[in-house]
Amino acid sequence: MSIPDALSELSSLLGDRLSRSKSDRDLHGACEMDFPLTPPDAVAYPENTAEVAALVEICARHGCPIVGWGAGTSLEGHALAVRGGVSVDFARMNRVREVAAEDMIAVVEPGLTREALNTELRATGLFFPVDPGANASLGGMAATRASGTTAVRYGTMRANVLGLEVVLADGRVIRTGSRAPKSSAGYDLTGLMVGSEGTLGLITELTLRLQGQPEAVSAAICAFSDMHAAVEAVITTIQSGIPMARIEFVDAESAAAFNAHAGAAMSEAPHLLVEFHGSPAGVAEQAERFGEIVADMGGSDFQWADRPEDRTALWKMRHNAYYACRAIRPDAAAITTDVCVPISRLAEAVEETAADIAESGIPGPILGHVGDGNFHALLLPRADDANELATAKALAGRMAERALRLGGTVTGEHGIGMGKLHYMEAEHGAAWEVMGQIKRALDPQDLMNPGKMVRGN
Amino acid sequence: MSIPDALSELSSLLGDRLSRSKSDRDLHGACEMDFPLTPPDAVAYPENTAEVAALVEICARHGCPIVGWGAGTSLEGHALAVRGGVSVDFARMNRVREVAAEDMIAVVEPGLTREALNTELRATGLFFPVDPGANASLGGMAATRASGTTAVRYGTMRANVLGLEVVLADGRVIRTGSRAPKSSAGYDLTGLMVGSEGTLGLITELTLRLQGQPEAVSAAICAFSDMHAAVEAVITTIQSGIPMARIEFVDAESAAAFNAHAGAAMSEAPHLLVEFHGSPAGVAEQAERFGEIVADMGGSDFQWADRPEDRTALWKMRHNAYYACRAIRPDAAAITTDVCVPISRLAEAVEETAADIAESGIPGPILGHVGDGNFHALLLPRADDANELATAKALAGRMAERALRLGGTVTGEHGIGMGKLHYMEAEHGAAWEVMGQIKRALDPQDLMNPGKMVRGN
Repeated sequence: MSIPDALSELSSLLGDRLSRSKSDRDLHGACEMDFPLTPPDAVAYPENTAEVAALVEICARHGCPIVGWGAGTSLEGHALAVRGGVSVDFARMNRVREVAAEDMIAVVEPGLTREALNTELRATGLFFPVDPGANASLGGMAATRASGTTAVRYGTMRANVLGLEVVLADGRVIRTGSRAPKSSAGYDLTGLMVGSEGTLGLITELTLRLQGQPEAVSAAICAFSDMHAAVEAVITTIQSGIPMARIEFVDAESAAAFNAHAGAAMSEAPHLLVEFHGSPAGVAEQAERFGEIVADMGGSDFQWADRPEDRTALWKMRHNAYYACRAIRPDAAAITTDVCVPISRLAEAVEETAADIAESGIPGPILGHVGDGNFHALLLPRADDANELATAKALAGRMAERALRLGGTVTGEHGIGMGKLHYMEAEHGAAWEVMGQIKRALDPQDLMNPGKMVRGN
Repeated sequence: MSIPDALSELSSLLGDRLSRSKSDRDLHGACEMDFPLTPPDAVAYPENTAEVAALVEICARHGCPIVGWGAGTSLEGHALAVRGGVSVDFARMNRVREVAAEDMIAVVEPGLTREALNTELRATGLFFPVDPGANASLGGMAATRASGTTAVRYGTMRANVLGLEVVLADGRVIRTGSRAPKSSAGYDLTGLMVGSEGTLGLITELTLRLQGQPEAVSAAICAFSDMHAAVEAVITTIQSGIPMARIEFVDAESAAAFNAHAGAAMSEAPHLLVEFHGSPAGVAEQAERFGEIVADMGGSDFQWADRPEDRTALWKMRHNAYYACRAIRPDAAAITTDVCVPISRLAEAVEETAADIAESGIPGPILGHVGDGNFHALLLPRADDANELATAKALAGRMAERALRLGGTVTGEHGIGMGKLHYMEAEHGAAWEVMGQIKRALDPQDLMNPGKMVRGN
């Protein structure tokens, strides 16, 4: 029982689609964030479910760890091969298997990216709404329960995955869910797999809910004198029941970064970026009511982006915020944080975080999907300054602890991976052990993405 | 290790809140539907979570089965004590623990009914949207993943439970979820517990998402020449993205029953009953677009119910459909069916079902939450006619098989209980065994609602 024996059998199964090259292994042992390089022993490129099942069966027989790999956009080291083994890269399983327009669903392979899916859907009048910013793979988005700018309207991956095909740790292939819009037939295994970060099985097919392209879309940006007013405007908007499609917050430091590095011309103040979806009359009404709320909160600089190209530019700027903000200090390390709190505690959470960052002297623009109570600080300590690095990590730690203290969660959308594992007990208490019991029941050898999610053996 | 030993200890714990009277036991061994009386050995009435945990710990020590009990409105024998033991009746745990209006959540005890919650919420401008018809307990609704008329807009219990407190089979108390609107922190234990029908633990507290009372509500009823046209109107409406709050189908036989037994004056034809929620302008626009679709499909007899009392009367009639339909044959047995199919197969599913029922000669009005692809037939065989009873059961069986053949599920909202257990393998295949693995991991003694949901030992 050994990894080399597994690799030898996997070579026979996959031929040159099992790679042991250093470059491939290093690529699959790296993460967007600052984690130590942790390469797998080999990278497999299966082409279909049967190959994945055969691969897992071989690994199970030889006790070889298995880590899934989508587009590599994880921010918490989810796919680091901390115990070696095989990285299963779904690049060759990236097809749209079916679009059932009448049922508003698509059946896709896990390596397909969300942008590729939406490109294929363009002619159908349908789209897949979950938008984490990065062009992530849909399998990875399901595995991490991703969300992003549109979750306030359309929900996270949890709400948008109707069913899955999963290869379990012993090579069994199961199907979860059905094509019916709802079901009361048994445990919600789809929901259990979504967010399980590859620790319970490998997703080999997803049945996704689609949405109709809205008849009308309108976007806008507006400024606030301070963070508190912006956050209060968000709370009032949500509570008024205005069905926002997006409602994003960026702070003054982010606005300055957009001006400097993304060609924006924003006042250096906190801003909200919003989008409305609906019928022409519905969108107009929503926009008008939102405008009233903004005026009440002292908002200003209202700019509409009604033309598609203006909206595209607006959201491209938001999606590239990471790069614009990094350019504040090009040689800095970047620590991306991600917390989520109840809406009632959002102003408090953002303000305390901003004050804490300001006191540290480290740049740390704050932005987020505030309609969900979810926000990020991008901390930029000097890469060669051990004190700054330690200070930034302490700031990130206090953000997580603050979120828990305020009734929230240490991660709204980025997931646990390696980066948040040490908060699981604080967040879940005795329920964390229940996750471990489920893990051991479905993966008794601890082969599926070992070293993640549950308490170590 | 015996049930009598457990009951003796439970008596010390609960005093006269452990009942062994025949009337109490029989009440908790019965079901709305035609299942054999299956009483527990005793009925417990705990008053708080600590008592539930102590109760479960005693039962675990003595190997005594535990079955949760809410309002007794289950239609599939979920709470029948098929292996005896203790029925845990949550009647005394029926408080609203907190309403956090800013966060739009309520924290409630499991024995609270949905109507009682909405009565308490009246002054807040908020409401809890899930509406299965019966005045069920919220704990029971979570346990069975209930839905009903409003799920097409607001989702099922799965989407509306944000977190739970659960007493596990060994007496441990866990909390799942947080008050943040979303989280990517670990396995979705909330989603696993919702729909687990008391087989993984007892829910002792629920954190529920609330909705703002819509500014404007409008309801309508309209007739169609045939079932196919009505179902096509539903499909077109859904695909047009009109955000219906309710869209219900009743067939000609149901309409006749409403006329005879609920004072309605409907044409004896298939009807749709709809409701719109939103701003005044939004509701008006939705209603107008729906009216156009109905006209295209040859709909007629459009009647609006804009006044609150007219809407209340309309939905009261719909909610009492069971009683109106039963009155078609007052001495008949009633077999309530519940299937859910992809929207694209809805017309086919309803028409095949109607033809099958017509051929049998047994009355069987069809109605359902067709916006979700979910419909019911209420089969009314003569109670003293073994042939008719067998025919009705065969009809129900063919409905379930038809739903599976069309890519759907054997239950959209009523759940598995005793009535649908024999379909679990057909619906889930190998995934059913995964449910069994989870069950055995969390309840190795098989004490929590034993004999349900998973394969028997």
